[in-house]
Amino acid sequence: MPEMRIRPVGFVTGSPEDELRTIEISPEFEDGLLRIEHCEHLWVLFWMHALPEEERQVLQVHPRGDRARPLTGVFATHSPMRPNPIGMTRVKLVRREGLRLVVEGLDALAGSPVIDLKSG
Amino acid sequence: MPEMRIRPVGFVTGSPEDELRTIEISPEFEDGLLRIEHCEHLWVLFWMHALPEEERQVLQVHPRGDRARPLTGVFATHSPMRPNPIGMTRVKLVRREGLRLVVEGLDALAGSPVIDLKSG
Repeated sequence: MPEMRIRPVGFVTGSPEDELRTIEISPEFEDGLLRIEHCEHLWVLFWMHALPEEERQVLQVHPRGDRARPLTGVFATHSPMRPNPIGMTRVKLVRREGLRLVVEGLDALAGSPVIDLKSG
Repeated sequence: MPEMRIRPVGFVTGSPEDELRTIEISPEFEDGLLRIEHCEHLWVLFWMHALPEEERQVLQVHPRGDRARPLTGVFATHSPMRPNPIGMTRVKLVRREGLRLVVEGLDALAGSPVIDLKSG
C-alpha cells in the first residue's frame, strides 16, 4: 500500500467566531480552483492541527462533552478526538478573490491546514 | 505544524457493484465503534489507494470525464484526482457484526483503507 501522506493545499484564517472566514489556497494549487465560483457550497476537509497527539488515542467520548450522554465510540460522533484528526464541514462559498475563498459556516481553528475541497 | 500522518482504521471489502459492502475495522479501534448501531447513516472517509501518484498532480478535469463539460478545477468537483486522494461518501449503516460494518452506498474500491467514520 502506498504511504498515506497528506500535504496542505491551503490554510484557514480568521476566528471561528467570525461569520465569514477565509481559506487561502497555496499558489501551486490555484489551477484546482477553476470555475469554483459556480459552487454554492463546498465541503472543506481540514487537519485539526491543535489536537494533541494523545487525543488521537481517545476512542470513546461523551458526545459534546455532556456527561449525561452515554459514552460513545468516536466513529459514531463528530468529536474532534479520533485516530485521524480530519475535520469535515460543509460551507457556503460567498465569493472567490483570487487564491482566497470567503466562506460562511466554517468551524475550523485559524491556521488549520486545508487538505481538500469538494463541491457540496 | 505537526506532521500530517494518517493511519488506516480499517479496510473496505467487496466490489463497488455489490449493493452491500463491508467495512472491516481493525481490532485496535474496536472501542471507537461503541453505540455505532444507533447511527442510521455514516460518513466514510477513505484513501483512494489505487490512484497513481501522477493523478495527484492533476488539478483540472472534465467533470465525470465528459469532454462536453468545461474544464473545471478538481476542488469544484468530486473527481478522484486531487492532491490528497481522500474519498468521502455518506452510507447507510445496515448492521454491525462485531468489527464489521455492513453498509449500503459505498463507492470505494475493495481494499481501500478507511481513515475515518463520522455520524452522518
